[in-house]
Amino acid sequence: MPELRKDPIVGRWVIISTERGRRPSDFGRTVAPKHAGFCPFCMGNELKTPPEVFAVRENGTLPDSPGWRVRVVSNKFPALQIEGDLNRKAEGIYDKMNGIGAHEVIIECPDHELELSQLSVEQINLVLTAYRARMIDLARDKRFRYIQVFKNHGEAAGASLEHSHTQLVATPIVPRRIQEELKGLEQHFEMKERCILCDILDQEMMIGKRVVVDNPDYLAIEPFAPRFPFETWIVPKAHNASFEQSYQGNYYSLARIMKETLTRIHLTLSSPPYNFVVHTAPCNEAQGARQFHWHLEIMPKLTRVAGFEWGTGFYINPTPPEDAASYLRDVAIPEVETAASKTLP
Amino acid sequence: MPELRKDPIVGRWVIISTERGRRPSDFGRTVAPKHAGFCPFCMGNELKTPPEVFAVRENGTLPDSPGWRVRVVSNKFPALQIEGDLNRKAEGIYDKMNGIGAHEVIIECPDHELELSQLSVEQINLVLTAYRARMIDLARDKRFRYIQVFKNHGEAAGASLEHSHTQLVATPIVPRRIQEELKGLEQHFEMKERCILCDILDQEMMIGKRVVVDNPDYLAIEPFAPRFPFETWIVPKAHNASFEQSYQGNYYSLARIMKETLTRIHLTLSSPPYNFVVHTAPCNEAQGARQFHWHLEIMPKLTRVAGFEWGTGFYINPTPPEDAASYLRDVAIPEVETAASKTLP
Repeated sequence: MPELRKDPIVGRWVIISTERGRRPSDFGRTVAPKHAGFCPFCMGNELKTPPEVFAVRENGTLPDSPGWRVRVVSNKFPALQIEGDLNRKAEGIYDKMNGIGAHEVIIECPDHELELSQLSVEQINLVLTAYRARMIDLARDKRFRYIQVFKNHGEAAGASLEHSHTQLVATPIVPRRIQEELKGLEQHFEMKERCILCDILDQEMMIGKRVVVDNPDYLAIEPFAPRFPFETWIVPKAHNASFEQSYQGNYYSLARIMKETLTRIHLTLSSPPYNFVVHTAPCNEAQGARQFHWHLEIMPKLTRVAGFEWGTGFYINPTPPEDAASYLRDVAIPEVETAASKTLP
Repeated sequence: MPELRKDPIVGRWVIISTERGRRPSDFGRTVAPKHAGFCPFCMGNELKTPPEVFAVRENGTLPDSPGWRVRVVSNKFPALQIEGDLNRKAEGIYDKMNGIGAHEVIIECPDHELELSQLSVEQINLVLTAYRARMIDLARDKRFRYIQVFKNHGEAAGASLEHSHTQLVATPIVPRRIQEELKGLEQHFEMKERCILCDILDQEMMIGKRVVVDNPDYLAIEPFAPRFPFETWIVPKAHNASFEQSYQGNYYSLARIMKETLTRIHLTLSSPPYNFVVHTAPCNEAQGARQFHWHLEIMPKLTRVAGFEWGTGFYINPTPPEDAASYLRDVAIPEVETAASKTLP
C-alpha cells in the first residue's frame, strides 16, 4: 500500500510509492567519467575565469595565479548582476525589479579528477570556510536578503562543468522555499515554544531507522517525507540559525559527516548525480531569521520530475526513506579520517 | 540587465536572465523518433493493459477489444491505490495516511505514430471529453479532493511510453500548488472583488506582446513570470472555475487552440519534450473552489532544474516571455482546421 506522508516543516505531501519499490541498482543514473580537455577551473588557467574574490593560498602566491587550494570567482555567466539599484516597478498589474545579485563559483580543489566526496576532511573544511567567508562578505551588502549556496554534481543535476565546484547566489528577496520553512518553524514555535527541527532530531535519534550517520555534532538522516529517493539531510544537533554565523574557527565536524555521507551515497548508488543546498537563515535581519535551524539538503537525481509534480507540488518517491537509510548505513566504505588526526598546514 | 519578475497569482519570483539569452535553436532538446516494437497502448493489444474504465468506441464494439478512438485504463503501476480507507495516522510528530487515490491513463488515439498536436481537432475534442468523463466520475468518490490531469511528452519530460497519452491522478488532498493558486485568487478577490486571471487576460489582450494565439473563447499566452522558457498557458476568456463542470457538449474551441499552440511549440522548438497540466478547481467543494479560474499550463522541458531552483523555489529562465511569444507567433504552421467544418460521426 502506498503511503502519503507530510513534511512537518513546510507541509508538503509526498507519495511513498511502494508499488514501484526501487533498490539502489534500479536507477542506473551515473555521472559520466571525467574527460581530459581544457578546463578553466584547473590550476594554471586562473586568467580564464573572472578575477578571484576569495582564495585559500600558499604563502606568497599572488591572486589569479597558481598556488591556491580553494578559489572563488564570479560566475562568468551570472544569473544576476552585481551593479545597480533594485528599481522596483509595476508593469500594469505585475511586479518586477532589476535582477540585482551576486553569482559566484567556489572551485573546491585544484585537481580536475577529484569530486567533493573524495577530498580530504581538511580540504572539505577549507571549502566550507570559503562558503562562510563569501556569505559573511556578501551579507554586508544591504541589498541582499538571502545567500543560497548550492552544488550541482553531474550533468543530470544541472552541472555544466565537471571540475568539482559549488555555486552561490545572493538574492534581493527571501526565496519562497526559505519563507515556507520559516513559516513552518514559526507555527511550531507558537504552539510548542520549541524548534521543530530540534524535535525532529530527537525523534529520529530515538527511533534510529532513518539515521544514516550520527556524529557528536551532526545527524545525517533520510527525512520522513523525502521528495526524492535517497534524499538526505545533514542537521546540526545544536540549534543554530545560521551556517555562517554560528561557527568560530573551523568546520571539521561538518566536513567529516559530509565526506562520510557523500561517500555512502556515491558507493550505494554508483556515483549518482546530485544537488545539495545549504538552508541557512536569511541575512540582514529579514523576517524572523533567528528561529531558523540551518541544515544541508542532499538530493540525488535518480528519477525525473514530471507533469504530476509540476502540476501539484506533490512528489512521488519510489524508495521509502527507511529503506534508503538502511542501504546507506550498510554499504562498506573506507574509514573516514578523523578530524582530530589532521591539522591545518 | 536580468530582471526579477513576480508571478501575480502565487507570488513566485523568477529570474529572466538576459545574459544567457536563448533562442529556440539554442536548446537542442528533441523528442527521439518513435521506434517500432510492442506497445500495450496500440489497437489490438487491449488485453495487455488493465481493463478499460472509459472509451469512445465504434458502435457495436466491445470493451477491451479493438474499435476504440480514445481509451482510458487504470495505470498498471499506480502511484496511488484505489481500494481502502485513508486511515490518517500520526507517527510521533509526523502525519501520514494510506496512499488512496486513482491513477489512470488516457490513450489519446489508436495510432502509435501520432502525437497530440498531430491529431485532428475532432480527435483532440474526444480526448478532452474523456478527461471530463473521468473527472466527473471520480469526483463522485468523496475520498477525493483533487483530480490532476497531466501529460508527459518525451523521455526528458518523464514519459516512459511513447504512444501519445495523458494521465490523471485523483488525490485525497488538495495539492499545494492548487492551494497556493486558490490563496492568490482569494487575496486578489478580497482587495478588488475581481478575479486576478480575468485581470491578467484583460491586460494581456490590451498589450498583446505575450499573446501566442487568440481565439473567441481562449487566449494562449506566455505568462509574465514563466518558470520555463516557452512556458505557455491556455486560459478561457470566460471565468469558469472548473474544466469539467463548465462545458456542455464539446471542447472544440479548446481543442482548436490546443492544436494550434502545441503545433507552434512543436515547430518552433523542433519537437521538444513537454509537460502540461490542467489546473481546475478542487472537487467536492473543498476550500473556496468557486473562485478558481481553470487553465492549462504547458511547460516545454528545455533546461534542467538544478540546485538553485530546488533550494530556493526561484527559477532561472533564459528566454524572456515576450521573445518566446514572438517566436511562437511568427513560426509558419499549416492552417488549423476550423472546428465548424467538422462534425462528430
